[in-house]
Amino acid sequence: MIEIPARKGRAVRVRKGQRIKVINTKGQQVVDTWAFNADDLHEFMSMEHSRVAIERIIPGIGDALVTNKRRPILTLVEDTSGGIHDTLFAACDRWRYEVLGCKDYHDNCTDNLAAGLAALGLTPPETPAPLNLFMNIPVVGGNRVEVRPPVSTPGGYVVLRAEMDCVAAFSACPQDMVPVNGLEMRPTEAHVDILE
Amino acid sequence: MIEIPARKGRAVRVRKGQRIKVINTKGQQVVDTWAFNADDLHEFMSMEHSRVAIERIIPGIGDALVTNKRRPILTLVEDTSGGIHDTLFAACDRWRYEVLGCKDYHDNCTDNLAAGLAALGLTPPETPAPLNLFMNIPVVGGNRVEVRPPVSTPGGYVVLRAEMDCVAAFSACPQDMVPVNGLEMRPTEAHVDILE
Repeated sequence: MIEIPARKGRAVRVRKGQRIKVINTKGQQVVDTWAFNADDLHEFMSMEHSRVAIERIIPGIGDALVTNKRRPILTLVEDTSGGIHDTLFAACDRWRYEVLGCKDYHDNCTDNLAAGLAALGLTPPETPAPLNLFMNIPVVGGNRVEVRPPVSTPGGYVVLRAEMDCVAAFSACPQDMVPVNGLEMRPTEAHVDILE
Repeated sequence: MIEIPARKGRAVRVRKGQRIKVINTKGQQVVDTWAFNADDLHEFMSMEHSRVAIERIIPGIGDALVTNKRRPILTLVEDTSGGIHDTLFAACDRWRYEVLGCKDYHDNCTDNLAAGLAALGLTPPETPAPLNLFMNIPVVGGNRVEVRPPVSTPGGYVVLRAEMDCVAAFSACPQDMVPVNGLEMRPTEAHVDILE
């Protein structure tokens, strides 16, 4: 079991056919998730390509998320979290916190992605839009997007099956200025388990 | 007046304060649109960052689209096209047409972006998700996305004000296998005018 510490990121190599269990340990924690082709980091899971492929903005059971080359990379095979995730919002970054009024450095998912890959000796070629697991951003009235607390409860999880050898990365989102990680705005740890 | 030929792409340098008029000449033509910071092509208009900033999935009058550094780059200041545009779908690419069953090379917006910038001696550092002007991809029931014909009519246009010196690129989408460019699936030319 891999801990994704509160406010931090981790990455792990996953072989085709293995399953990735992402656990919302405390229940209100968003986990930004990325996947890169292990043989070519320039091919990666893409939200804008996946929405075309799955014909929805929130993946459901059986939906294969695809890369920027339209190839399946992760398939959602199980979900006990309430089924609410986000594909619309960018990973937070230093500029997001500056916009929110933060004067000092703030942990952020973009830097967490880079740190997670760096621990494997890798560099992300760019910061793809993440699959924001457990993040609750409804589209209201067909256009407006709202930031709401997650609907998941402690121990809720999703299982994603790898459709190719990949490098998966996760960030326990450090957002504590808007209620994306719950109304208490207190980021917590999450966990990841790789299943054969 | 710059013609964006049917199925092709063009790029143009735009100074801060200039306005870009994108005209749907024939009325049913999607125009994929990008903007890059002229001084640093790694900073570019980002749909996933813009949705956070404007709090909606379709920009309206007065909305400033932002870069991947959260800075305004283009503001929508006028729209006679019916106000329906898309920020959810990736630019089409060779793999999209392969998925649709195309055996030979098919013109595509991703290559059109590269060709448009190449004509200026530039190379896009990546293919950002485009602002798909006039493209009609409603989110139905809060989740499902549908491909529908544009609502715009001949001569409908949008005007975008440049908030920084930028390189803007446009592709008259060559999609002729799904009705994104109208039920006749016949891509046409569009036009761009740079206004002082």
